[in-house]
Amino acid sequence: MISRFSGLSAFPLTPLQDDEVDERAFAGLVERLGAAEVDSITALGSTGSYAYLSPDERARVARLAVKHAGGTPVFVCVADLRTSQVLAHVRSAEAAGAAGILLTPMTYQPLTADDVFELFRTVTEHTDLPVIVYDNPGTTHFAFTTGLYARIAELPRIASIKIPGVPNDSVRARARVAGIRAVVPEHVTIGVSGDASAATGLNAGCDAWYSVIGGTLPEPALTITRAAQRGRTAEAVAESERLAPLWDLFAEFGGSLRVTAAIAEHLGLAPAQCLPLPIQGLTEAQRARVAAAVRDLDLG
Amino acid sequence: MISRFSGLSAFPLTPLQDDEVDERAFAGLVERLGAAEVDSITALGSTGSYAYLSPDERARVARLAVKHAGGTPVFVCVADLRTSQVLAHVRSAEAAGAAGILLTPMTYQPLTADDVFELFRTVTEHTDLPVIVYDNPGTTHFAFTTGLYARIAELPRIASIKIPGVPNDSVRARARVAGIRAVVPEHVTIGVSGDASAATGLNAGCDAWYSVIGGTLPEPALTITRAAQRGRTAEAVAESERLAPLWDLFAEFGGSLRVTAAIAEHLGLAPAQCLPLPIQGLTEAQRARVAAAVRDLDLG
Repeated sequence: MISRFSGLSAFPLTPLQDDEVDERAFAGLVERLGAAEVDSITALGSTGSYAYLSPDERARVARLAVKHAGGTPVFVCVADLRTSQVLAHVRSAEAAGAAGILLTPMTYQPLTADDVFELFRTVTEHTDLPVIVYDNPGTTHFAFTTGLYARIAELPRIASIKIPGVPNDSVRARARVAGIRAVVPEHVTIGVSGDASAATGLNAGCDAWYSVIGGTLPEPALTITRAAQRGRTAEAVAESERLAPLWDLFAEFGGSLRVTAAIAEHLGLAPAQCLPLPIQGLTEAQRARVAAAVRDLDLG
Repeated sequence: MISRFSGLSAFPLTPLQDDEVDERAFAGLVERLGAAEVDSITALGSTGSYAYLSPDERARVARLAVKHAGGTPVFVCVADLRTSQVLAHVRSAEAAGAAGILLTPMTYQPLTADDVFELFRTVTEHTDLPVIVYDNPGTTHFAFTTGLYARIAELPRIASIKIPGVPNDSVRARARVAGIRAVVPEHVTIGVSGDASAATGLNAGCDAWYSVIGGTLPEPALTITRAAQRGRTAEAVAESERLAPLWDLFAEFGGSLRVTAAIAEHLGLAPAQCLPLPIQGLTEAQRARVAAAVRDLDLG
C-alpha cells in the first residue's frame, strides 16, 4: 500500500491583501492543485505563512483548504511557539477535516532535543491524526539529529519526516536518506524539501517531496515526481535541471518564498504584495527577472 | 539631563503556572524591582517570554507591570512576527501607560535590512512613545549592522539601542561602543545586554544595561551599574567577576533565561516550571548547581 504521505505534497501560499487573507485567491490556488492531481496539499506550511497568522485565520484557512481541495488529502501545519497554542491549532485542523498535521519546533528561545521530543510526545497524545515531523532549520534554527528523528519516529501516529534538502551528489544523497531510513520504522515516509534538491532526493529514495514551487506551479513539480516514482531518474533530473534558473533565483533572492510569491503575483494567482508585512517581497528589478524566468521556462 | 533610557533596566520574568500567567508572582517580581530602585523595568522582554504570550496576556501583563512598578518607568516589548500584530501590541502598551516600547525584528522567514527598517518606520509613525531598538540575534537570528542602527536611529522617537554583548577586551569594547556612538544621534542611548559583559559594556561607554539577571536579582546588578556610572570601573568589574560562576552557568546551560528562571523558582519568586512549554527549563541536576551558586554567592 502506498502511504498517503508520499508523492508530491504541494504547499500553497496563503496570499494576503491589505493584511487580510485573500480567501478567493487561496481557494483558487488550492483548486488548481486539486485539478492538477497532486498527491496531497499542505496548507499553512512555511510557504503558507502559518507563523504570521492568528489562530482564527489559521482555522479558517484550514477549513477553506479542505473545502476546495476536491478530495485531495490536506495536511495542516500546527506549529507555534507555545505547546498550548500548538494544541489549539491541532483542534482546528481536526475540525477542518485535515488528513494529517505537520509539526515543526518553532523557536524563539533555543530548544533542547528533550524539549522538542516532549513537544511531539504531547501532540501525538492529543490527536488521532497522523503527524509529519517538519524539519526546517532555515526558519526554526533547530537542528534535528538523525537520532532525534529515530526517537520521535517511535511515537504513535508519526507518519512522515520532512527533511531539508539533500546533498547534490547522488551517492551522498542516497547515503543520507538510507541513514534515516535505517533508524525509523518502515511505515514512516521520508519526504525531501528544498525544491532544488527534490529530484536528487526522490531518486535517492525519498518517498515524498514537500514542495514550495509545487504549491504554485504543480505541473513541473509533478513531472519531476512522477518520473522519479517510475524509476526514470534521468528524466527527473533533466526536468529539475531545466528549472535551474528558478533554483538560482531562489538562492540569489534569499529563499523560495519571496520568489514563489512573485511568480503567483505575476501569474495573477495572488494579489500584489501578498506576503505578510514586514516581509516586503521582491523589488521591482527582482520581479522583472522572475517574470523573465517564468516566460523563458514556459511556466506561465 | 540624564535620559530615562540609561542606568539599569531590569527585565522581569513572566512566570507561568499551569500554562497561565502567574499574576501574583509577576506583580511580586515587579514590586521587588521598584523597591530596589532600578532605573527602569522592561516588561515582556525576551526574559519576560513575550513571544509565547497571546495579545490579551501581553496587554494584561503590561498593565500589571505599570500598576506594580511604584512609579518606576516601565518599557514594554511590542515585537511580533507580523507588522499589524506589532501595532496591536503598541496600542496595548500605550493603554497600559508604558514609558517606552522595545521593538526587535522577530523573524520566521529571514528579513532583509529594508524589511526591518520599514517595520521600525511604520511603528514610529504609529505611536508617540519612545522606541528602543532591540538587537537580539540569539533569538531573532537577524543581524543588525552599525549602518542599519544609524539608519533607524534617524527615525523620530528612537530613544535607545539595546546591543548584544560587547567584546571581553576593554579596548575592543570601547571601540565597538564608540563605533555605534559615532553614527547615532546624541539623544539615542546605547544599552548593553548579555549580562556577563555588562560591566565591560558600561565601562566602555554604554549608557544603560538591559539586564536579564537584574529582573530577578536587582541588587548585584545595581552594584555593577552604580559603580560604572560613578566611574569606579574596577569596582564594576570586581562585582561582575564575583558573579562569574553565574555567567559560567548561563554559558553552560544554554543562556540566561533558564538559569534565571531556576533562580527565581529556587528563591520562591516564581512557581516551579515557570517557563512556557515546550521550554522545560533546567534538569534537577542543573537546578542543584544553580542553587549552590546562589548560596555560594550569597544571592538568596
